Amino acid sequence: MNRIKELAYKNYVKVDNIPIVVQKFGGSSVADFDRIMNVARRIRKRVNQGNKLVVVVSAMGKTTDNLIKMVKQITEHPDARELDQLLATGEQVSAVMLSIALQKLKLKSKSLNAYQARIQTLGKYSEARITSFDKRRLLFLLKTNDVLVVTGFQGLTDEGDIATLGRGGSDTSAVALAASLNAPCEIYSDVAGIYTTDPKLYPAAKKAKLISYDDMLELAASGAKVLHGRSVEVAKRFNIPIYCGSSFSDEEGSYVVNEELMIEKSSVSGLSVMENQIHVVIKKLPVNYSYVRDIFRRVATSGLNVDMISIISDEDGISVSFTLIDEKKKRLDAALKRALRELRDYEIEYHAGFIKLTVVGVGMKSGIGVASDFFNALKNVPFKLVTTSEIKISCLIEKQYKLEAVNALVKKFKL
Amino acid sequence: MNRIKELAYKNYVKVDNIPIVVQKFGGSSVADFDRIMNVARRIRKRVNQGNKLVVVVSAMGKTTDNLIKMVKQITEHPDARELDQLLATGEQVSAVMLSIALQKLKLKSKSLNAYQARIQTLGKYSEARITSFDKRRLLFLLKTNDVLVVTGFQGLTDEGDIATLGRGGSDTSAVALAASLNAPCEIYSDVAGIYTTDPKLYPAAKKAKLISYDDMLELAASGAKVLHGRSVEVAKRFNIPIYCGSSFSDEEGSYVVNEELMIEKSSVSGLSVMENQIHVVIKKLPVNYSYVRDIFRRVATSGLNVDMISIISDEDGISVSFTLIDEKKKRLDAALKRALRELRDYEIEYHAGFIKLTVVGVGMKSGIGVASDFFNALKNVPFKLVTTSEIKISCLIEKQYKLEAVNALVKKFKL
Repeated sequence: MNRIKELAYKNYVKVDNIPIVVQKFGGSSVADFDRIMNVARRIRKRVNQGNKLVVVVSAMGKTTDNLIKMVKQITEHPDARELDQLLATGEQVSAVMLSIALQKLKLKSKSLNAYQARIQTLGKYSEARITSFDKRRLLFLLKTNDVLVVTGFQGLTDEGDIATLGRGGSDTSAVALAASLNAPCEIYSDVAGIYTTDPKLYPAAKKAKLISYDDMLELAASGAKVLHGRSVEVAKRFNIPIYCGSSFSDEEGSYVVNEELMIEKSSVSGLSVMENQIHVVIKKLPVNYSYVRDIFRRVATSGLNVDMISIISDEDGISVSFTLIDEKKKRLDAALKRALRELRDYEIEYHAGFIKLTVVGVGMKSGIGVASDFFNALKNVPFKLVTTSEIKISCLIEKQYKLEAVNALVKKFKL
Repeated sequence: MNRIKELAYKNYVKVDNIPIVVQKFGGSSVADFDRIMNVARRIRKRVNQGNKLVVVVSAMGKTTDNLIKMVKQITEHPDARELDQLLATGEQVSAVMLSIALQKLKLKSKSLNAYQARIQTLGKYSEARITSFDKRRLLFLLKTNDVLVVTGFQGLTDEGDIATLGRGGSDTSAVALAASLNAPCEIYSDVAGIYTTDPKLYPAAKKAKLISYDDMLELAASGAKVLHGRSVEVAKRFNIPIYCGSSFSDEEGSYVVNEELMIEKSSVSGLSVMENQIHVVIKKLPVNYSYVRDIFRRVATSGLNVDMISIISDEDGISVSFTLIDEKKKRLDAALKRALRELRDYEIEYHAGFIKLTVVGVGMKSGIGVASDFFNALKNVPFKLVTTSEIKISCLIEKQYKLEAVNALVKKFKL
């Protein structure tokens, strides 16, 4: 661990010989005035230890949800540009509040919105990707300030409109900022690090002190909520270690790092559970892959994220099956009906009441027998579907087997 | 009146041959969703009548007060820059909400914040003055939009920080925008026009269909709240007629125009009342005007607005007297004590319980006998102090005479 820490905080940018650190605090960490003062005190401690900080904040508590509710009182389908202009005010408020709290503690602080930090983005409203910050200006302002508080979750389009980065986007703001400045990145939330499985589900869950980008990506994609998946992708691309810690305690958190940095790789590093899955089966499609292509094209343009896809072709025609979260069933049904509107005799089945279990670990690549251990552990649990990648195994089981399966896997892989 | 209307809407800027109008809606006009929809419908009507609109909005209802309360939970003395960054979010929210409401009514609308409309300012935080808009960009966007909704009350400093214009600043935003675009300006609130005296005080108060810039300035300075004084100054400088109307009814409002446009000038056009005045008297100052200068310098730097100043020099020395709103007494006392700290034998008296009555009218310049009518009307009311300017007379009376005095003046000058 000490070697990781050393690497994580070495060779990074300094201003007037003081090393810069990027920190991010999530919405629940700044949900009210006491919590904002708590965050301000933690930042002061860090400044006193000899850092200057660029702090990224999310909107306070439920602000974003409340703004969306406000809009819904006028229309169910707000214009994407206007919605982004509105949501961005949430982080603008929290950035100012934190900055004022820091000034109260006698720190020199300045809040910066997307215009002031020149956060440029590309892509669509509500799912924009950050392309750059005004790094020079940030470093210039750090000469005369202890802390800069930057609004997360937002950036600017080429036309100077505001575009948000989507749910969890502030994580990405922080990592992109760290990459741009060449600074270490620390992400604080109400969970002190990354757990190999959800502690609410399995109280004895262990914290991963170290986890690779790839494992974290798989965990995030299969439902772990500590870090936003896109932020991990950016960290991986720029090789920025991410420290995940608690906003409320000094408990040691987790480092998400390049696989190369990990000395001992356990073959399986995490287990995640996604609930409310339905298993969708489409049968008796003509042996003509244009329908299959059309199904997945329409599913994608409907914004649906399907998983565990399997396609079988036999004498009855082509069968396509995949999983999806239950609440998206209606939208899926509409998309499928459009894709198959020229056909008559196909069948669609929806099987509800499933959960998806996923174990991940870069160690699987070299480890032997993980699949065998996996199926061995689940010997009493009937499974419906299994899919694997280089570093993960997922299986779909009926929900009544959840606790039994989780316990068996946690025990087998010492999670 | 028709001649005024013609002049007010003639020779103004057009986009694709459609005339542009600037409208402003105050905070109570957009205080909730019903009211926002009401404003949106009024705008749609205007668009259907053949205009394109640039609409300036204040923050919804009590938003600004609530944001200030939020800050006060952290500190009583927030940094001016950070406070402005915070307050600006109020108008950003209301601009988006109105824009979304307009889109729901099938209008093409875009909300623009201070960055997007490039509202440049000079001066201090919380009291900045607008210097320019990006007129070209606004006219360009009007080609493809029916309405642009611009955040009032705010602009940018040269460094790209947000600076607000002070209370009532959205009026100034609207007039400055109208001046910049060369468009007529309409300001909507919950009062349908400008009353010659407060209708709450004197229910039979008449509405002024026409009022000159100078009269309006005097009325605003002496407490009338319909239009922000600075907005009238800007209108006067650029000769922009302002129409003041109701957001809630089609009742005919008032025009604030250049004196030259007024065909019949009544000698007195308005009466205003300022309550809670104290009369301050400083006696026995040495006959040395440096103390008098110092008093008024310190009063000004303390941000205190004194009025009805009179200075008398006789054998007892110099006496200075003036009026001030009661609640500022403590701050005044501190300023005076500093100014006079080297002196011993002076006396300060504070007489509370006064109100200040002011009648204004450009007609006074040519009208004869206004002062005589004024004192005649008030023959049963003892007054403490009287001051006059070219177009106004103010007098200080004890508060128990308020109703009697207002009635007498309203009757005498047919207000």
